[in-house]
Amino acid sequence: MSWITATYRIRAPRAQLDDFARGLALEQSVELSDAAVTDAFVRERVMGRVAAIRPGAADVHDVDLHLATVTTGLDVAQTLNMLFGNASLHPNVALVDVVFPPEVTAAFQGPRFGIAGVRARLGVADRPLSCAALKPQGLSSEALAALCYTLAVNGVDVVKDDHGLADQAYAPFAERAAACQRAVTRAAQDTGRGCLYAPSLVGAPAALAAQARIAQDLGVGAVLVAPALVGMPAFAELVTNHLDVPVLAHPAMAGAVRIAPPLLLGKLFRWLGADAVIFPNFGGRFSFDETACAALAANARGAMAGYRPMLPVPAGGLAVERVAELVAFYGRDVMLLIGGALLAGDVAARTRAFVAALERAPAAACAATP
Amino acid sequence: MSWITATYRIRAPRAQLDDFARGLALEQSVELSDAAVTDAFVRERVMGRVAAIRPGAADVHDVDLHLATVTTGLDVAQTLNMLFGNASLHPNVALVDVVFPPEVTAAFQGPRFGIAGVRARLGVADRPLSCAALKPQGLSSEALAALCYTLAVNGVDVVKDDHGLADQAYAPFAERAAACQRAVTRAAQDTGRGCLYAPSLVGAPAALAAQARIAQDLGVGAVLVAPALVGMPAFAELVTNHLDVPVLAHPAMAGAVRIAPPLLLGKLFRWLGADAVIFPNFGGRFSFDETACAALAANARGAMAGYRPMLPVPAGGLAVERVAELVAFYGRDVMLLIGGALLAGDVAARTRAFVAALERAPAAACAATP
Repeated sequence: MSWITATYRIRAPRAQLDDFARGLALEQSVELSDAAVTDAFVRERVMGRVAAIRPGAADVHDVDLHLATVTTGLDVAQTLNMLFGNASLHPNVALVDVVFPPEVTAAFQGPRFGIAGVRARLGVADRPLSCAALKPQGLSSEALAALCYTLAVNGVDVVKDDHGLADQAYAPFAERAAACQRAVTRAAQDTGRGCLYAPSLVGAPAALAAQARIAQDLGVGAVLVAPALVGMPAFAELVTNHLDVPVLAHPAMAGAVRIAPPLLLGKLFRWLGADAVIFPNFGGRFSFDETACAALAANARGAMAGYRPMLPVPAGGLAVERVAELVAFYGRDVMLLIGGALLAGDVAARTRAFVAALERAPAAACAATP
Repeated sequence: MSWITATYRIRAPRAQLDDFARGLALEQSVELSDAAVTDAFVRERVMGRVAAIRPGAADVHDVDLHLATVTTGLDVAQTLNMLFGNASLHPNVALVDVVFPPEVTAAFQGPRFGIAGVRARLGVADRPLSCAALKPQGLSSEALAALCYTLAVNGVDVVKDDHGLADQAYAPFAERAAACQRAVTRAAQDTGRGCLYAPSLVGAPAALAAQARIAQDLGVGAVLVAPALVGMPAFAELVTNHLDVPVLAHPAMAGAVRIAPPLLLGKLFRWLGADAVIFPNFGGRFSFDETACAALAANARGAMAGYRPMLPVPAGGLAVERVAELVAFYGRDVMLLIGGALLAGDVAARTRAFVAALERAPAAACAATP
């Protein structure tokens, strides 16, 4: 017998908690009342069960359920269904952690490149990495490629499309990706230093596969995909069947999901094969706090079923002034993404300041990976 | 110029609302500060703008944004990205309504069958419809098919797989779908009355397409798919490219999304091609209230870009005793889904009582479609 342990945070009066937990175990498995489940195999091997109840303060409690691995069919969509399909319809329930048994993790490979693979592609073994974004959407492919060159030639490690860049009339995907890839190639020739361009893949499954093919034929060094936007099952299939470059996961639409960000972005995206994960940093224009960011980074890089570590990429309103602080917080194995703050004013000068700040980030602080 | 109108419900002090709204318009389009957007084309044609601010009580306000249609590339994933991609990361923001311009709706066909198409397949023009579910998962294909026959021969219009039935070892998809389709065919021969069997399609895109092919080769009358679970872009592609039977949308994972249910289930699922939509009814074991259910049904059946009306399917803890009340509430164009309550005890007798209750539901009440 193999079970997944799923932890739910439940808002309910303590007196109702035990019943609610038992109801949730039924809802997330057989979707019938206990009395209506008469088959012995179903009762013993399929029906979910309450594994632990940890009452908390202020009517917020944690409950661990055991969900039978056999119910997942080892499929991404069905696993998510068992973890949170109907539970998502209860506004007082959040999914906060999942521990997969070896049967589940063995069926998925996790990141194919991970932190070491991204570093190897860049030839940078020992310092935090830098990332910048091409924006705003609405610019022509030529204008975006010119910006891409400026960022790359001034030393940024990874230049990614803004997640809003899709296949729009003003900068069609194939044209834009080709122009930007030419720009990073030219910058690398000019500087002798590598830079990865990551185009944004957005669309339904067939469009994603077509964009992946175009991008890889151009020789791009990475791609950007938002798993919660394209759908996590489609994301997993894209990574496995259609991509052989590192994958940066973007959090678009992920905040819409009532699954705790350290779990969703840090653990589940890694399970599905992301090599790096972009997330809103604390103190920026979103509301993630230090605790959530540290937990997310710990899930991204910590031990998980022998999976490669995933690179944390804090973003969302970062500025050059925060580089030292954030390297001290996240440690060396991080990629800082500065978007808009590089693009107002003298882009080249700001980019050089960003790159220089990363290079002088104190080694002692860098050791303090949380 | 063509714009989408998106309405957000924002929790913020009134004094910060105007700034927040302007920030959201930038976040959902150019993702740059206003000052950093210097290109005239981008400012006029691409940058989002605040169209209306409706301050409310208790620091909860509604804001309409205009988002440029051109930013969507008329792609499902990118449209969702523009509507709620980064906004989803703000816990104080919900997406509560969307009005698409003709350019967007013209690119999508909506339901291919709709209410009239489902009625035509059943040969039932003028009464509310009945639906039942095959469960629990863990039963063999044979046991599920036997249950399917009992439900069909006793008069249920649509028998669907429980959404937890996937491609699991105890009842593999192809085996189960074949057995259940044989069961409804035999029941129809025995009664002279039609019944549609709807297998549940769950998986990543390639698995969904394969399951759709198997199901349609078997001659199934409908299918069940959870758009928020498989991913809305993958759902839309599945409907358009791989299905030619009516599609019942299931709400699994949809509650996880901070998009108002009347919009997500009632309007967006219809936009993506669902012919019927299952949702948790008020007074059941979930927390949707009467207002939300009425608004969802109104969106499902009301005028929308010339799209066919979508059949509302309230569910989630219904019992036969509520049939008259619910037909009075929803009107004639509804399908009531009773799951577990039919399956405890004498299934045949309970099913006949359900069917009889629907047939005697008062015509006067039936006229009162909300």
